[in-house]
Amino acid sequence: MGMNFLVGQSGGPTAVINSSLAGVYETARSCGANRIYGMQYGIEGLLQEKLVDLDQLLGNTLNIELLKRTPSSYLGSCRYKLPTPEQDEAVYQKLFSIFAKYSIDAVLYIGGNDSMDTIAKLSAYGSRIGSPIRFIGVPKTIDNDLMLTDHTPGFGSAAKFIATITKELICDSNVYDLQSVTVAEIMGRHAGWLAASASLAKGEDCDGPDMILLPEIPFSESVFLSRVEALRKEKNNIIIAASEGVQTEDGTFLCDLVSGSGAVDAFGHKVTLSGTSRYLSGLIQKHLGCKTRAIEFSTLQRCASHLISRIDVNESYQVGGAAVLAAMAGETGRMSAIIRKSNAPYVSTCETVDVQEVANKEKTIPTQWIAENGMQMTAAFEAYARPLIQGEQLPMYVNGVPRHIRM
Amino acid sequence: MGMNFLVGQSGGPTAVINSSLAGVYETARSCGANRIYGMQYGIEGLLQEKLVDLDQLLGNTLNIELLKRTPSSYLGSCRYKLPTPEQDEAVYQKLFSIFAKYSIDAVLYIGGNDSMDTIAKLSAYGSRIGSPIRFIGVPKTIDNDLMLTDHTPGFGSAAKFIATITKELICDSNVYDLQSVTVAEIMGRHAGWLAASASLAKGEDCDGPDMILLPEIPFSESVFLSRVEALRKEKNNIIIAASEGVQTEDGTFLCDLVSGSGAVDAFGHKVTLSGTSRYLSGLIQKHLGCKTRAIEFSTLQRCASHLISRIDVNESYQVGGAAVLAAMAGETGRMSAIIRKSNAPYVSTCETVDVQEVANKEKTIPTQWIAENGMQMTAAFEAYARPLIQGEQLPMYVNGVPRHIRM
Repeated sequence: MGMNFLVGQSGGPTAVINSSLAGVYETARSCGANRIYGMQYGIEGLLQEKLVDLDQLLGNTLNIELLKRTPSSYLGSCRYKLPTPEQDEAVYQKLFSIFAKYSIDAVLYIGGNDSMDTIAKLSAYGSRIGSPIRFIGVPKTIDNDLMLTDHTPGFGSAAKFIATITKELICDSNVYDLQSVTVAEIMGRHAGWLAASASLAKGEDCDGPDMILLPEIPFSESVFLSRVEALRKEKNNIIIAASEGVQTEDGTFLCDLVSGSGAVDAFGHKVTLSGTSRYLSGLIQKHLGCKTRAIEFSTLQRCASHLISRIDVNESYQVGGAAVLAAMAGETGRMSAIIRKSNAPYVSTCETVDVQEVANKEKTIPTQWIAENGMQMTAAFEAYARPLIQGEQLPMYVNGVPRHIRM
Repeated sequence: MGMNFLVGQSGGPTAVINSSLAGVYETARSCGANRIYGMQYGIEGLLQEKLVDLDQLLGNTLNIELLKRTPSSYLGSCRYKLPTPEQDEAVYQKLFSIFAKYSIDAVLYIGGNDSMDTIAKLSAYGSRIGSPIRFIGVPKTIDNDLMLTDHTPGFGSAAKFIATITKELICDSNVYDLQSVTVAEIMGRHAGWLAASASLAKGEDCDGPDMILLPEIPFSESVFLSRVEALRKEKNNIIIAASEGVQTEDGTFLCDLVSGSGAVDAFGHKVTLSGTSRYLSGLIQKHLGCKTRAIEFSTLQRCASHLISRIDVNESYQVGGAAVLAAMAGETGRMSAIIRKSNAPYVSTCETVDVQEVANKEKTIPTQWIAENGMQMTAAFEAYARPLIQGEQLPMYVNGVPRHIRM
């Protein structure tokens, strides 16, 4: 008899996280799985035994195509932090009793570094008690900050959306014969991958952003203002792409200087960092007195499934399928990862890596991919990122708007 | 010899204002125009004699297709308020001397109600001095607030973008098994057409926004909070689509209660009304204590040319062409308008109307299109708006991002 699979989604959603779910489901189904369960709202929902039968929900090829075009996590998500067994072994006993009840052979968890922490803990605990259940992580995050994978599924689509709307905003900002500074606020807590992607707006028909502010480079008010002042002498309309995670030398987030908010999630991460663009606009207005505009790209960066990268959709699907194959091969405590074989032509493949080496770590932008002035990206960054935004997957428009699948 | 045309773009741009320029250019060219000039930065640039030869810039069919996919005003724009001849006749003498210098036979101006004011003044002055020059307006505004046209070119594409991203945000907001309220801030100074368009997210796969706040309905804090409270008892995640122009009974904009800003443009309009969603989020947090999120759809609403309505693109092109035909027929002081022939199937045509009746007026949403509680749209609104978001015009993607044309 085939294996029983259990798959969940966790952490902040992306526009393509459901493509990984499609990859898990279709691969498991075509490999002769017995049952394929989904956990609703991740591990947190699983603890309440919220399981669904994916054959009933997805057993039709049109549904799979809709799933690949539906943003956010189809199964629901959570930000639940699994305690260590030393802190609370009862949670583990509960989870393994649910696994036993449904005769689960493999647990696949689609998420970011916090979710890999969950897989690392479950696989370690499973090994300790001699459980044969395989635990495999499937990477997902728009932030592109996971170790050991060339990039993360979800990043390419967010980067494509950011580059596209940055291009559109640059057109918009040039419309009047007046001086203006536009500050676009882009997601990314401690790694500037998404803000850096605004540089992909640049091409024969667009100069791209005039300045990129990254969390990797400490913010200096005087350096910033003198750069804006210099740019104003060169051109009328200045576009600044600023990461929400920009911070001063002493580690203060700029957004904290405007909002003063400090809510944190179960992992100790700040829940929202909004305010950086308003802070920078205020600074420019105060010191240079020119017209400014603050724009937050907001949640759209992670859910704009109407504009996604075909490369990203395909790779998201592949890492989901590769996780199924790894589980069938008896692997556990692993994460499926994307390995880049070449930039031109772009070729990638999937392998598994040790999930312990991924959990709770963050990958930032290599120094040599940031220009010497700390405010632009180098050609090496473009060589890395440009292939990831290639190709499109078009929505299925019904009644004028993209059709989604909902449970 | 054919006529000499001069065309300009004015006011805030849209994602399809360049389709009207394409319609003007191609129609004039195919009707045997002699020269087709573009004014850079509208009337303001014209006063500095900033003219371009459109044959040199657009005389190739690929360029026309790129133009129809390029957001913002290709020719540049202005917010210049033409004085009356009584206030400053020298401006008129300057403009008519430039018209004479280039032997202009017809002036076409693509814009909103302020731009129609410009056309009304120029045609009245021309008549008074016995000038044979024809002045025709071409409607354009995402706000849909022009009189005498069924709807405005630009509205359909903005509505399609708003409905789509509202759908995507609703997916995103449902991801956690937690209570949350999301407030999306949507453009529209004194008319709620764009906020109302968020209702088009509703369909078999989406409930649409739970509440819509329009400038047409005075805002009451107590009514608002009790409605949110009632919704929280029905469902976990609440989505509110709020117009930036929402105001209290005494005419105070909600955004003024948060930002206190009061910059106005040459027409006396407030330049930016941002802050409504932050104000409402704060109100909910203070009184109901639940998790809230404020999202501004921002400038993307008017420049997201990657997601536009085919109907809107076609009609924008048609009103441009119709303006050329009207000028050739000797009309002046007119605006080309869209006349709806039927809803199902949707059929429209172009006619010209008196630009005086359009200038400086605003069309708001009819009362019978707003639900009795003032917080939802009726089926009559959907019958009106749904046809306008049908069909797509896809970008030409080059290197992963949409290709534009720039001068």
